[in-house]
Amino acid sequence: MPLVGIVMGSRSDAPAMQGAIDVLEELGVDYQVSVLSAHRTPEKVRQYALEARNRGMEVIIAGAGGAAHLAGVLASWTTLPIIGVPLAGSALQGVDALYSMVQMPTGVPVACVAIGGAKNAAYLAAAILSLKYDSVLKAYEAWRQNLAEGS
Amino acid sequence: MPLVGIVMGSRSDAPAMQGAIDVLEELGVDYQVSVLSAHRTPEKVRQYALEARNRGMEVIIAGAGGAAHLAGVLASWTTLPIIGVPLAGSALQGVDALYSMVQMPTGVPVACVAIGGAKNAAYLAAAILSLKYDSVLKAYEAWRQNLAEGS
Amino acid sequence: MPLVGIVMGSRSDAPAMQGAIDVLEELGVDYQVSVLSAHRTPEKVRQYALEARNRGMEVIIAGAGGAAHLAGVLASWTTLPIIGVPLAGSALQGVDALYSMVQMPTGVPVACVAIGGAKNAAYLAAAILSLKYDSVLKAYEAWRQNLAEGS
Amino acid sequence: MPLVGIVMGSRSDAPAMQGAIDVLEELGVDYQVSVLSAHRTPEKVRQYALEARNRGMEVIIAGAGGAAHLAGVLASWTTLPIIGVPLAGSALQGVDALYSMVQMPTGVPVACVAIGGAKNAAYLAAAILSLKYDSVLKAYEAWRQNLAEGS
Amino acid sequence: MPLVGIVMGSRSDAPAMQGAIDVLEELGVDYQVSVLSAHRTPEKVRQYALEARNRGMEVIIAGAGGAAHLAGVLASWTTLPIIGVPLAGSALQGVDALYSMVQMPTGVPVACVAIGGAKNAAYLAAAILSLKYDSVLKAYEAWRQNLAEGS
Amino acid sequence: MPLVGIVMGSRSDAPAMQGAIDVLEELGVDYQVSVLSAHRTPEKVRQYALEARNRGMEVIIAGAGGAAHLAGVLASWTTLPIIGVPLAGSALQGVDALYSMVQMPTGVPVACVAIGGAKNAAYLAAAILSLKYDSVLKAYEAWRQNLAEGS
Amino acid sequence: MPLVGIVMGSRSDAPAMQGAIDVLEELGVDYQVSVLSAHRTPEKVRQYALEARNRGMEVIIAGAGGAAHLAGVLASWTTLPIIGVPLAGSALQGVDALYSMVQMPTGVPVACVAIGGAKNAAYLAAAILSLKYDSVLKAYEAWRQNLAEGS
Amino acid sequence: MPLVGIVMGSRSDAPAMQGAIDVLEELGVDYQVSVLSAHRTPEKVRQYALEARNRGMEVIIAGAGGAAHLAGVLASWTTLPIIGVPLAGSALQGVDALYSMVQMPTGVPVACVAIGGAKNAAYLAAAILSLKYDSVLKAYEAWRQNLAEGS
Repeated sequence: MPLVGIVMGSRSDAPAMQGAIDVLEELGVDYQVSVLSAHRTPEKVRQYALEARNRGMEVIIAGAGGAAHLAGVLASWTTLPIIGVPLAGSALQGVDALYSMVQMPTGVPVACVAIGGAKNAAYLAAAILSLKYDSVLKAYEAWRQNLAEGS
Repeated sequence: MPLVGIVMGSRSDAPAMQGAIDVLEELGVDYQVSVLSAHRTPEKVRQYALEARNRGMEVIIAGAGGAAHLAGVLASWTTLPIIGVPLAGSALQGVDALYSMVQMPTGVPVACVAIGGAKNAAYLAAAILSLKYDSVLKAYEAWRQNLAEGS
Repeated sequence: MPLVGIVMGSRSDAPAMQGAIDVLEELGVDYQVSVLSAHRTPEKVRQYALEARNRGMEVIIAGAGGAAHLAGVLASWTTLPIIGVPLAGSALQGVDALYSMVQMPTGVPVACVAIGGAKNAAYLAAAILSLKYDSVLKAYEAWRQNLAEGS
Repeated sequence: MPLVGIVMGSRSDAPAMQGAIDVLEELGVDYQVSVLSAHRTPEKVRQYALEARNRGMEVIIAGAGGAAHLAGVLASWTTLPIIGVPLAGSALQGVDALYSMVQMPTGVPVACVAIGGAKNAAYLAAAILSLKYDSVLKAYEAWRQNLAEGS
Repeated sequence: MPLVGIVMGSRSDAPAMQGAIDVLEELGVDYQVSVLSAHRTPEKVRQYALEARNRGMEVIIAGAGGAAHLAGVLASWTTLPIIGVPLAGSALQGVDALYSMVQMPTGVPVACVAIGGAKNAAYLAAAILSLKYDSVLKAYEAWRQNLAEGS
Repeated sequence: MPLVGIVMGSRSDAPAMQGAIDVLEELGVDYQVSVLSAHRTPEKVRQYALEARNRGMEVIIAGAGGAAHLAGVLASWTTLPIIGVPLAGSALQGVDALYSMVQMPTGVPVACVAIGGAKNAAYLAAAILSLKYDSVLKAYEAWRQNLAEGS
Repeated sequence: MPLVGIVMGSRSDAPAMQGAIDVLEELGVDYQVSVLSAHRTPEKVRQYALEARNRGMEVIIAGAGGAAHLAGVLASWTTLPIIGVPLAGSALQGVDALYSMVQMPTGVPVACVAIGGAKNAAYLAAAILSLKYDSVLKAYEAWRQNLAEGS
Repeated sequence: MPLVGIVMGSRSDAPAMQGAIDVLEELGVDYQVSVLSAHRTPEKVRQYALEARNRGMEVIIAGAGGAAHLAGVLASWTTLPIIGVPLAGSALQGVDALYSMVQMPTGVPVACVAIGGAKNAAYLAAAILSLKYDSVLKAYEAWRQNLAEGS
């Protein structure tokens, strides 16, 4: 059962979200990738979010551009931690997606990372899972140690 | 049965949305006001939107601030024309709400008006209804005529 | 007699506005395309707008970039619903056109869509026309249904 | 016959435009003040601009806020130099008005001054008129001389 | 031993961060509040972060304004999840703090919430802790349930 | 003796300013082109501006990018009308140059045109010179007439 | 002979620049305060800058708002290090001043500090002078030590 | 012993920082280049900054992009003058780096130059060192003299 769900608003977002997959692979964290649009397929997003915790999912990473409602809509249907990745690509270069994801109203938070920050979304998921899973903690700390030595 | 639904994300948005009510009153257009949050009460928003056309509603005006998903979420559940009113109030002065409302993805449009433009949302609703209802056409054109003469 | 008028400020805007044509073709909505500049040919814009309702037009889609006055100037001469499409292309990447179109003063609304959102302007026109024309309602809802299933 | 026309989009802009009046009084330049809205009273703006040169006007100062089309619309109807004063007051603090005024398309220029820069609009008018009228040249240069000495 | 550390850059940030305290109190989550500046007291920040996981802390909430380095600097010294709260107050109204917190480089993520979003930082901490602590899960879900019913 | 001085901050700005030359050629207005930097050659800028009116110059067009001080510095040394052309090219895409040119303090105005608006700077110069020179008036009005017919 | 010159564009900038005075007093660094405008009194600014190094000045702090050319113009006339303090106050809240000061062209640098950062301009001056003057080094390091302990 | 330390956050920043090297070479100022990340290698940054003054370094130039904390973190560990070079490259085109570097809190200043202004960082270093080293003064003034004559 995957611990992390990676959701993107459109198939065309796949390259921008590949970094999240790469990082979770590298850290040995199970994940599932879905293409779901908050606007075009709202019922599928709702089902996905309502069932996620029961299915054993613990963190959802949502990448979207423009009026990027995906992370916020997921957050409206579940209490799992939602990590939002604002994607560039619109004329506004991702500032629209950033504001749409980060400025959530009180009570329904989204954990927003950088524009195009798919990799960091996965590292943040690892940081969250590291609280509970020793294997993730070890993998993430080893990676960070390498980072500190290698740079 | 009201032709226009006015929805706002929070009771605290009522003063900012009062202009829409005033204009619809002035033009003699029936309306209904609801407080519904895309994030806090997503199920209520979904029901509202799914039933709106069958209930005889023809235009929905949605006002929200911050990561203003309300108009977009309504648009995801119905094919009625949705008019979005981005509201100021956050640190970003409504630019966040503007971008969240106007930058909708292809296929699920929102008709966005100015930040704080509740009155114009109602005039736009009147312009839309004027195509079908002569009484609205007459009231709107009379008002515009006054505007041109009075200023 | 076309129900939708598509107006663009310059012949060079044609590629950016093609999406509106494609969508209206797909939905079977009659339209007419015109190149009219609010600044270079103000008299032609005025005549176009003053006659539009009598000619049977019901929605006008206006695309322009930079200090994009086209939608607002059309709105000043007619009470038909005007949909504005801010176009990128200037150094400001369409933010100038967005602000020029969306921040209209009280009484003269423009329904603004995303920067470069020509397709959504047409879908919004369809949503408006769907209130009155069953054929448009069916075509638009069928398209949205496909969207929800296909994504 | 006034050399300078001062036009504002709304009576509520009068305090913001008072500085232009004060400066022209101080420099002894004749002016006329009008309240004309590009959106609410487009026909009056058109008549004003079409007749301005024949009436002996040489410079028009236009102050407006929001989607500030006034200067651009005046410029579309006349070849006189138009000075635009973007006014703050909207949620966007005048950035909308600035972009709407300054980003004019090729062939129809507006001379834009600072947000809220009504005084400088008048000094710019004086600089323009100083090319032709010795009295304006003397008054403007004397004022600038004082400025340099007094600061 | 507190599960959540609340850190703020300056004593003057206390009112802006009070919401995080209120929410954690309401949800029954232990926390500790510290005033530590990434710039003025870097050694204290370093010690705090290096020891946090061993002290039993699981989430750190960091609020700061201006060139808000606090969350990023904490993240550089620990692999715990760091939640950043950009604070308004500077001339740039918190946009500077937002960009400084959200645009973190690959490998060292910060979970950014809205400008001034101290409450949501605490709700996000609860969502994270809900994966491991049933009491937090129950308290958070009960609160969200109330939210959905009450609004 | 040239009526219009075209000044640019760097030889690399020549392509961006070519439009001004083309327009003045087309309208038959004499001009002189100079490369002068407000920052690298301040003494040359000072001499140029101090002598300009006596040399018979009537309008100065100044193009610069980044912290574009050129127009403002010229305006500080002369009472001639200065037209500023903010140039893109920096990371900020000309917004820096726009703000540096348009936000001049009271008493020392610059007439700012669009980012990259070299052609409009020349048309604005023509509008100014049209007040005094019939040949410029005729050429400019003929061009505008063509514009209105041709578009 | 003062080591630091504090220059402001207008007497009304005095409160915003007081912090620089307070810090230099506290650190025991001699300074001189002048009101000089790059636009209104360009000759005085030129004289000031040309003579500054010979008069024994080593750092110049320049505070200005709007199209804040003061720091850049000083830098154009001298090779002394110039520290720019962008001041808020315009409709653009100091972003205009920031861009005008920080985006200087190659060869003529300005050391820019935060919007309204008059105190930090003085601390930066102290850091520069600390390289040469032991008394400044001791005073600045003692202050920073207090800062680290006190916060 | 190098007088100037050039630090960059990542090896990929080397092309963007090459200008600083070129200028220091040209002016005959000794320098040392290091790749150190405030986030990935915070301990190395700390050691670097704590030892810099004792090692004889007098100015540090720090280039970084995104949430560019490098300059500010260096400044938190030393009282040497730190010159920050915000680098473009992120979706926000360097505005994020600019705000992260320039908006430093009181007491810990960074001298910020233009986005991508590596050359000017070196010229600013030269201006600072010119106060103490005659050879730097002569080289810098000769270069500026050439600049003024050559442009």
